[in-house]
Amino acid sequence: MSLPSSSSSKQAGAGVITCKAAVAWAAGEALVIEEVQVSPPQPMEIRIKVVCTSLCRSDITAWLSQAPMFPRIFGHEASGIVESVGQGVTEFEEGDHVLTLFTGECKRCRHCTSGKSNICQVLGLERQGLMHSDHKTRFSIKGKSVYHYCAVSSFSEYTVVHSGCAVKISSSAPLEKICLLSCGVAAGLGAAWKVANVSEGSTVVIFGLGTVGLSVVQGAKLRGASQIIGVDTNPEKNEKAKAFGVTDLLNPNDYNEPIAQVIKRMTDGGADFAFECIGDTGMITTALQSCCDGWGLTVTLGVPKVKPEITAHYGLLLTGRTLTGSLLGGWKPKSDLPSLVNMYLNQEIKIDEYITHNMAFEDINEAFELMREGKCLRCVIHM
Amino acid sequence: MSLPSSSSSKQAGAGVITCKAAVAWAAGEALVIEEVQVSPPQPMEIRIKVVCTSLCRSDITAWLSQAPMFPRIFGHEASGIVESVGQGVTEFEEGDHVLTLFTGECKRCRHCTSGKSNICQVLGLERQGLMHSDHKTRFSIKGKSVYHYCAVSSFSEYTVVHSGCAVKISSSAPLEKICLLSCGVAAGLGAAWKVANVSEGSTVVIFGLGTVGLSVVQGAKLRGASQIIGVDTNPEKNEKAKAFGVTDLLNPNDYNEPIAQVIKRMTDGGADFAFECIGDTGMITTALQSCCDGWGLTVTLGVPKVKPEITAHYGLLLTGRTLTGSLLGGWKPKSDLPSLVNMYLNQEIKIDEYITHNMAFEDINEAFELMREGKCLRCVIHM
Ligand SMILES: NC(=O)c1ccc[n+]([C@@H]2O[C@H](COP(=O)([O-])OP(=O)(O)OC[C@H]3O[C@@H](n4cnc5c(N)ncnc54)[C@H](O)[C@@H]3O)[C@@H](O)[C@H]2O)c1
Ligand SMILES: NC(=O)c1ccc[n+]([C@@H]2O[C@H](COP(=O)([O-])OP(=O)(O)OC[C@H]3O[C@@H](n4cnc5c(N)ncnc54)[C@H](O)[C@@H]3O)[C@@H](O)[C@H]2O)c1
Ligand SMILES: [Zn+2]
Ligand SMILES: [Zn+2]
Ligand SMILES: [Zn+2]
Ligand SMILES: [Zn+2]
Repeated sequence: MSLPSSSSSKQAGAGVITCKAAVAWAAGEALVIEEVQVSPPQPMEIRIKVVCTSLCRSDITAWLSQAPMFPRIFGHEASGIVESVGQGVTEFEEGDHVLTLFTGECKRCRHCTSGKSNICQVLGLERQGLMHSDHKTRFSIKGKSVYHYCAVSSFSEYTVVHSGCAVKISSSAPLEKICLLSCGVAAGLGAAWKVANVSEGSTVVIFGLGTVGLSVVQGAKLRGASQIIGVDTNPEKNEKAKAFGVTDLLNPNDYNEPIAQVIKRMTDGGADFAFECIGDTGMITTALQSCCDGWGLTVTLGVPKVKPEITAHYGLLLTGRTLTGSLLGGWKPKSDLPSLVNMYLNQEIKIDEYITHNMAFEDINEAFELMREGKCLRCVIHM
Repeated sequence: MSLPSSSSSKQAGAGVITCKAAVAWAAGEALVIEEVQVSPPQPMEIRIKVVCTSLCRSDITAWLSQAPMFPRIFGHEASGIVESVGQGVTEFEEGDHVLTLFTGECKRCRHCTSGKSNICQVLGLERQGLMHSDHKTRFSIKGKSVYHYCAVSSFSEYTVVHSGCAVKISSSAPLEKICLLSCGVAAGLGAAWKVANVSEGSTVVIFGLGTVGLSVVQGAKLRGASQIIGVDTNPEKNEKAKAFGVTDLLNPNDYNEPIAQVIKRMTDGGADFAFECIGDTGMITTALQSCCDGWGLTVTLGVPKVKPEITAHYGLLLTGRTLTGSLLGGWKPKSDLPSLVNMYLNQEIKIDEYITHNMAFEDINEAFELMREGKCLRCVIHM
């Protein structure tokens, strides 16, 4: 990459950076590493030198979707170092270590100040491929705008995010590991701890044993769940699943009866907690059917590729089941992620074990292939 | 009615009673007052002289459904006096005043002892039209069995219920009023208090302003909700609705836009709590859409006539909404209903205002017509 012409200036208004980014030109087509122009951060924004970014299933799902937002730069699970800050930013300065946030925290809206929501009404999940503030992009290729993803777009050597969409973390934390806390691992732990509040001795079933599902497993185990049933169609996940704490592995393909029925039998009527970590709304129904009358709680985390509508028989709810969901495990990202980083540093939570592959930026398409084929948990891309 | 031949005996094994019951011979056809034979209570059962029974929408829905369970005696919201007790019953004796329970409480199963469920695994909602214990009926007409409804069947001068499906209440409570606590009013109050735990200053929207919906309204008002939006397509409900505490009335037919959108505008992004009290799964979706990101809670109470499947976009859940439901407002019927009766006696809750009609048993079909046409809240039938 070529440094910005005004590279000596570290403040707001630093010049355009030209650097490498992995650009998706069309749905499902291999990314192309291109030279892109990255604008300086606008007021209240920061520009980040991405250090590591891992690939999450949500990137794949969005890349495969036909939403007419191409060319586009994906990536939302990342760590980096602040390169420059826009006007008005006092929270960050050059050199700060940060995690990017695919759902931000303005700290001012009714939700951020509520103490009971992480769905910021100002900097929440961005779906138009643009920046929150001016509905424009900060990337271009020879003058042609390139769409963002979740207002993060970490598959680029440099990216611009709103200062509410990054969180400063301890500079002693290894950026090549803790990038996973920017999405998948935090989402799973929070679902178990904050959303479901899994209790000691409870029975838990997790649908999908990718990084998100196995983070729910880790969370449930740390809470002392007595039975942790893991459901996955891919037997390659079994070994890691056991290592994280799954007590019973189920592959729906091994059964001639609905898997919910098997789970009800194993748990004397249904699990206390069920988590959908696949991205398949049909499995949300199955999760609800797998948990018990009276207090069974299903938490959905997945982002479906097809069929966005969940269906459920009303009787499942009338008999006392509850269905809820969460983004980023219900964590308030700025307020809560630094403590997860510290838990990692104190060896209270595991992250390294989710990383099955490390690769160079130019091999990013390989990571996409591994994830599509179900041959990895997290691939960490070193920029 | 003719008294049992062994009418002097007050114990278990008292003889068959022949009395009048309103029998449904086919789906949706007018009930016929017939002479029926009511068996003596079997072990752990009691026979009740029904004093008053009110008509709940669930009776109508079941009567209209094509389930092949005819002839059948409906009715599940009732008060009465114990006539005789079966072998082993120590909890009741002749002359006790009781409410019938369409969902019972055995006090022994995992749910009854859990402190967090009212879905008894032994005496829960009975769907086969039979008694829980032996899967038989206690009614017959000239030797032909007559199906029960919810193991209560209160549209009969005498009925037999499991001793776990009735609760003894203060003999000073007026049976012609507190029969409503056997289902509808308790269901609504519990949904507001126990299930949703409506908080002071919150915004609440109630879909359906029948007795159940207006009991949620009463519950929300007593909790100090600041805005109580009532949604109903029938303007005849408006006056009572205001009297119970609805602050804003909405008739979806008055709007050219989805009613959820109107509600979101009125509540700055969505209500804190939404309740479905209609029996229309489409309105459960609307309820979920009407409540807010982050902490919006939808409680469904309705029993749908058609389309038992609820559908909801996964995004509603991922952004922090919760969907749950309840039978009888989550109350443990035996443990909790007596205190509701006492609250009524202490004038802490209203019941009388839900009673729009009082009628004699022989006019029961009129009550069915009034409810079908939306011209009543509760009709109390005096046996
Ligand atoms: N809510 C959030 O904040 C959040 C955060 C991160 C990811 N996600 C979503 O969570 C889901 C999981 O993410 P991930 O990164 O762990 O994905 P992943 O692809 O690594 O894991 C998914 C797992 O589900 C399994 N699976 C697929 N179909 C299955 C089926 N029919 N039955 C059983 N198992 C099946 C796969 O074999 C795989 O192991 C995705 O939908 C992702 O988009 C949500
Ligand atoms: N969960 C429980 O424990 C429990 C207990 C009692 C009743 N129920 C169920 O609750 C529901 C309400 O019972 P109820 O006795 O109050 O019934 P009801 O018929 O008296 O009240 C229903 C109300 O909904 C209104 N309504 C109908 N369609 C509507 C629409 N599309 N939009 C807006 N309003 C509409 C009607 O005008 C009526 O006022 C029924 O489905 C009943 O079976 C459940
Ligand atoms: Zn992710
Ligand atoms: Zn905010
Ligand atoms: Zn009822
Ligand atoms: Zn029980």
